Amino acid sequence: MTETRPDATLSEIDRAVNAAGDAFERYSVLPPDDIAAFLEAIATGIEGLGDDLLRTASAESSLPMDRLTGERGRTVGQLRMFAGLVRDGAWKDVRVDQALPDRKPLRRPDLRRVLMPIGPVAVWAASNFPLAFSVAGGDTAAALAAGCPVIVKAHPGHPKTSDLVSGVISKAASELKIPHGTFSLLHGASPEVSVALVRHPGIAAGAFTGSHRAGRALFDAAVSRPTPIPFFAEMGSVNPLFALPGALEARGEAIADGLAAAVNLGVGQFCTCPGLVVAVESEALEQFAGKLRDRFGLGVPGTMLTPQIARSYREAVSRIDSMDGVRTTRPQNGSVGESEALPALFETTARAFLEHEELGDEVFGPSTILVRCANDSELRDVASNLNGSLTATIHGTPADLEDHRSLIFLLSRKAGRLIYNGYPTGVEVCSAMQHGGPYPATSDPRFTSVGTAAIQRFARPICFQDFPAEFLPEALRDA
Amino acid sequence: MTETRPDATLSEIDRAVNAAGDAFERYSVLPPDDIAAFLEAIATGIEGLGDDLLRTASAESSLPMDRLTGERGRTVGQLRMFAGLVRDGAWKDVRVDQALPDRKPLRRPDLRRVLMPIGPVAVWAASNFPLAFSVAGGDTAAALAAGCPVIVKAHPGHPKTSDLVSGVISKAASELKIPHGTFSLLHGASPEVSVALVRHPGIAAGAFTGSHRAGRALFDAAVSRPTPIPFFAEMGSVNPLFALPGALEARGEAIADGLAAAVNLGVGQFCTCPGLVVAVESEALEQFAGKLRDRFGLGVPGTMLTPQIARSYREAVSRIDSMDGVRTTRPQNGSVGESEALPALFETTARAFLEHEELGDEVFGPSTILVRCANDSELRDVASNLNGSLTATIHGTPADLEDHRSLIFLLSRKAGRLIYNGYPTGVEVCSAMQHGGPYPATSDPRFTSVGTAAIQRFARPICFQDFPAEFLPEALRDA
Repeated sequence: MTETRPDATLSEIDRAVNAAGDAFERYSVLPPDDIAAFLEAIATGIEGLGDDLLRTASAESSLPMDRLTGERGRTVGQLRMFAGLVRDGAWKDVRVDQALPDRKPLRRPDLRRVLMPIGPVAVWAASNFPLAFSVAGGDTAAALAAGCPVIVKAHPGHPKTSDLVSGVISKAASELKIPHGTFSLLHGASPEVSVALVRHPGIAAGAFTGSHRAGRALFDAAVSRPTPIPFFAEMGSVNPLFALPGALEARGEAIADGLAAAVNLGVGQFCTCPGLVVAVESEALEQFAGKLRDRFGLGVPGTMLTPQIARSYREAVSRIDSMDGVRTTRPQNGSVGESEALPALFETTARAFLEHEELGDEVFGPSTILVRCANDSELRDVASNLNGSLTATIHGTPADLEDHRSLIFLLSRKAGRLIYNGYPTGVEVCSAMQHGGPYPATSDPRFTSVGTAAIQRFARPICFQDFPAEFLPEALRDA
Repeated sequence: MTETRPDATLSEIDRAVNAAGDAFERYSVLPPDDIAAFLEAIATGIEGLGDDLLRTASAESSLPMDRLTGERGRTVGQLRMFAGLVRDGAWKDVRVDQALPDRKPLRRPDLRRVLMPIGPVAVWAASNFPLAFSVAGGDTAAALAAGCPVIVKAHPGHPKTSDLVSGVISKAASELKIPHGTFSLLHGASPEVSVALVRHPGIAAGAFTGSHRAGRALFDAAVSRPTPIPFFAEMGSVNPLFALPGALEARGEAIADGLAAAVNLGVGQFCTCPGLVVAVESEALEQFAGKLRDRFGLGVPGTMLTPQIARSYREAVSRIDSMDGVRTTRPQNGSVGESEALPALFETTARAFLEHEELGDEVFGPSTILVRCANDSELRDVASNLNGSLTATIHGTPADLEDHRSLIFLLSRKAGRLIYNGYPTGVEVCSAMQHGGPYPATSDPRFTSVGTAAIQRFARPICFQDFPAEFLPEALRDA
């Protein structure tokens, strides 16, 4: 049973934001080594909590220990990756145009441009990654690395886990003499807490992972402020997978196996869960569909993160099941607990898909919709009408790709990451990752929330003209 | 007398945006050399219009020929700079993480990330730069360079100039077989045309230079769309200049001369016009103020871009002049024509400045406000309460800077470019330029509208996972 915490009061929010503002100048000018050491101390502190952290997170989220062990590895890995990025310093995109004193008709001044931290950042923790997208998750790590103080709004689904990690950050900050106010945690289940935080004049940017409804509401609050601020919302994503004819012919069964595994991974609670499969009618598609039905028919109940999430999933499944032109395959095992979900496979036609806009929306949980197209033209129509997603996947042979070059372009308009002959679940934390796609997958597809480039969300460029070296930020001085 | 053009109809807007959408795939995949050649052909074509273009622009804007000659040089220089950037390709920020096939427990896929064009871009031309921030100005050049089709909403202040330049672009496009629809020009003086354009579902981003009122209205329209889009508005900027004691002592008269010249340059119609001067009371300040009064008292009327702009300026001057605690110095020459403006110097105290929020707003025209502070603490209060600006300037000796280190930090929160011992007018077009600052100077201080980094506004990253080389964008293939 998850504990509840009282909502942060307006004066607590105000205090946290003002403390972050006070800390900003001193924190932002710390030497890179000090910021890196802070991030590393948080990583070490999280490891130091041992299995106690994992057991707490598992009890609060129903996620199994092995999954959380992996997530902890990712979390501390991210913190250390950003520590390395801070020490390296190349992320600051330093640009120097030296003075041209003799240029006619006017001298060119000395101009030096560098990315600097944007200011105090508010982070909304996600339900589905109680460690890696939560209190010391990717957003927090990226913002602290950029030199920004951070205020985390904990997810009400895992308050004890949040407090444990928050304690680690506070202890690291205190031991390393990081300015007071650089990090704060706020609890709050009500929208009022979140809106008050995003509208506080002292907040310079926000980062959120969660539902479309909450994400859009906070985005709207952020951009309608007297002074609008950047707000990075990662929301729902359908992650379409296109199974092209040659691939279905050559290895349709293997794709069905891989797809069913990806849809059911973590009870479908990954933002990269492939919720839509698109293919053209053929004998191979019929066999592929049959194999998918076998796999989904043998599914077992899985426990979701919260009873509310499980209820929303079951309602969405019922809604789609009752739609005309939809065939549903579910396990016969009908008895599921309050927090449980059964996998579901839906099959429909391109025409039905295009008629029912709702079929293009994300269902958070272990379901997918197979859209059976009469021909390539319908397949392109489906692709053209997709909502924005984090990922889009193509299974095909090289000959398939050659026949569908314009599909690659179309999908690049719809997603931030294109995958060939793989599955979208499993997001590498690295330099080349793009975890962000067109709306409604995110509020701003120009940025990523995973990988080193995530730091760019929390920085803005400043150009110094003709300043003496000793008053320039260190990164701008001649070597 | 400026001609008027009928507003573009909704169906004309729709046609232009749809044509841009149709052109997008083919334009975005053109070889860099072809895009560069297009930009260069536009530059050559503008030069080919000769003095006819300058005379037309001068008649429409009242800007003198020598100013427009310089602006034309900047315009063609920008186009050629972006052509070079496109050929170089480094702006695409290519990141490659090669596959690690033997990694345990899971192989790492091959991940390659590149910036790709965001889609059709709408550009709103500015009144005060009929060439460099207009039809073939910096926004258009940056968007075309990124691979985006462009629809320009012409400024009603210079329709004939706009048509001339538009003709050059269309001719270059046709000669170089650039896909039809890659460029369109729309006329329209009414807000309805602009709102319909920014809300058209086929538009992927917008760039605007103009007033705060129009910029904020279009920003609001852009972010409240069902699918919000990035909207880059460059609006008003006060460009504060801090004259520190050592500098006033050492060269107060020279600073007064330089400042008066910067305020009056182009009848004060530059977005970097220094509209605010802040200093602490001293004998040197008294002499500085006296010199400024002399300079402003001897000013002559200047013709502004439009009668409307001149009227707004004169109204703002009267409003400030009538405020308590403001001393105004203006030339005695009282007779000004409908489109004319006289320079104005206002002097007030820090207390009055902090009390009257309006004194912190931009006045577009040849005026500046000298804020006289009783002490350093008041000077810091004024700095802390500034609106966001494109630039902030410090005149000081190295000892002054040493005494005011926190002022440098404070101003870096308030501006995109910090200038030492210079004047903000004169914006270099180069790699290190940052022409963009916190709201209300712009709607997004993370980007610049001048210099090579301006291209970043019109791109978004896409990550390709495990794609065969021949289906990757050329920039992502192994060399």
